[in-house]
Amino acid sequence: MATIKDVAARAGVAVGTASRVLSGSPQTSPDSRSRVLAAARELGYIANGPARSLRRARTDVLGLLVSDIRNTFFSELAHAAEQEARAHGYTLLLANANEDAEQADAVIDAFASQRIDGLLLSPQGPKNPRLEALIASKLPVVLLNRSIDGVDLPLYGTDNAGGVAQALAWLQRRGHRDVAFVGGPESFSTGAERHDAYLAGREAHGISTDDALIDAGDFLADGAAEAMLRILDRGTRPTAVFGANGQTTLGAMRALRERLGAEAASRIEIVSFDDVEWFAFTSPPVSAVCNDAPEIGRAGVRGLLDLIGGGTATSQRIATSFIDRSEGDRA
Amino acid sequence: MATIKDVAARAGVAVGTASRVLSGSPQTSPDSRSRVLAAARELGYIANGPARSLRRARTDVLGLLVSDIRNTFFSELAHAAEQEARAHGYTLLLANANEDAEQADAVIDAFASQRIDGLLLSPQGPKNPRLEALIASKLPVVLLNRSIDGVDLPLYGTDNAGGVAQALAWLQRRGHRDVAFVGGPESFSTGAERHDAYLAGREAHGISTDDALIDAGDFLADGAAEAMLRILDRGTRPTAVFGANGQTTLGAMRALRERLGAEAASRIEIVSFDDVEWFAFTSPPVSAVCNDAPEIGRAGVRGLLDLIGGGTATSQRIATSFIDRSEGDRA
Repeated sequence: MATIKDVAARAGVAVGTASRVLSGSPQTSPDSRSRVLAAARELGYIANGPARSLRRARTDVLGLLVSDIRNTFFSELAHAAEQEARAHGYTLLLANANEDAEQADAVIDAFASQRIDGLLLSPQGPKNPRLEALIASKLPVVLLNRSIDGVDLPLYGTDNAGGVAQALAWLQRRGHRDVAFVGGPESFSTGAERHDAYLAGREAHGISTDDALIDAGDFLADGAAEAMLRILDRGTRPTAVFGANGQTTLGAMRALRERLGAEAASRIEIVSFDDVEWFAFTSPPVSAVCNDAPEIGRAGVRGLLDLIGGGTATSQRIATSFIDRSEGDRA
Repeated sequence: MATIKDVAARAGVAVGTASRVLSGSPQTSPDSRSRVLAAARELGYIANGPARSLRRARTDVLGLLVSDIRNTFFSELAHAAEQEARAHGYTLLLANANEDAEQADAVIDAFASQRIDGLLLSPQGPKNPRLEALIASKLPVVLLNRSIDGVDLPLYGTDNAGGVAQALAWLQRRGHRDVAFVGGPESFSTGAERHDAYLAGREAHGISTDDALIDAGDFLADGAAEAMLRILDRGTRPTAVFGANGQTTLGAMRALRERLGAEAASRIEIVSFDDVEWFAFTSPPVSAVCNDAPEIGRAGVRGLLDLIGGGTATSQRIATSFIDRSEGDRA
């Protein structure tokens, strides 16, 4: 782990200067400030003097880093986590990574410099020096929703394989063969687990194994719309679409309507991983794997409080439920 | 403003004990801890020793307190504010008040004890000692979306009267006379401004002035559903419903469907203050006053950075647009 001497050396300043910059003293020049902060960023340095001692003092504040605050899954999770934290006398501060690893790093820096008692983290990508430094700093941390290869922290997330199995069973009951699957990034464990479970299960459920029907976006609406258009551009004619999260479903529905018109698009059945409160009112109605975001948030907070109390915390996969909103028989 | 001596006296402990508790030292007993924190809460005390000096040191972190993170308006606002902050080298930490004044106070305490450079605040109610102490602490603060009577801080919010005028014009074009209005809390400036603009404008737009058609919830879905049911229970037969924010519209639509059935409910036209990405796919389609949440977030961050830089900031009302999703002529 990088020390303040390493940072000062890399920035070409005295250790005292680096220390003043990193402790937030106003008595530093803009030039040394930017050089020291850049060096600290490059080295994955996390202040361990005053910041750590502050961090060790109880503040009754927890941090929560979510992947995308505009995604209902995360806003529901955040709300439930905050209520659970509050029931235990803690206040929750949130930050949004916007599905961006660099932004997540900036937030981890901010939380590390804040006086928080523990962090709930929904990771954006693989292990990196920033994350290793955070873990080395001994701040209690639990992971939410997504795991990280090679990082051994308690994980509170969805049973992705179980949820995909529910969607596959529904697709089979509805008699769909040509199903488009719009996935998420393979670099996220949620994206990879849902994709793998779908590929492994489709044949047994009577679904076409034509890979022209498979594509992936970035778990945000615009990227999903592009993936859906690529699937259609290959000349496929899906009768159903499976969106791998709520924003992906939104983007896929936009693309279908744009390319095929509202009338034809409304005849394609939709199933979504993640339920959204508006699905009850959409045309076509969207059936959904209901991710129990509130319970994931609550379980994560309880696990983190166990760690803060000096105990251990055990990973948990929370079961999904399925909401069938399909209407009548398919022709 | 309360001093640490006041807090110690109220808690019945020595000043040194109060100081240790308030600075987060672990060397305090649970009993003195709870008494000191309760006293600090009652007196609206905000630590002004170590916490203030930390606060004066630049941290490149801004705080944002939103009213309800599950409300799309606030999640869009938060996302845009975070992007704007990031463009200026700042990281944004969020907290959620869940439309609850007591929870908002806890968050203000948490932010006050954190090392932030400034706060964007969406208020939950009238002025209180906590808020006065925060303002007295000289932390740069701007208000978002809602004003507070008797508090002179720069406000970045929606042009509510202009937005209601757009909805009234649409209701008139669609030929509606019996319009149900489901408002928000009168204690929020947004609730009051939308309600007042609707009452002032309805007659001139050919809309019934029967107050049986008017009710209000809490800007959350469940409270709005109850308000909608109260309107129906008075024997009214609205042909259109105007929801005063996105969650209010959701709750009203749920109540209509529950009470009247999906078929009858889909014949009632809906207009919402706040656009939601799913409205394009709902049945009936929802026309909406499009609150420019991203621009409010960005303008608020720019104003706050002006204050942090030692300058002044000027309140701004951001114009709304209108999205007409109505289909065909009404019978």
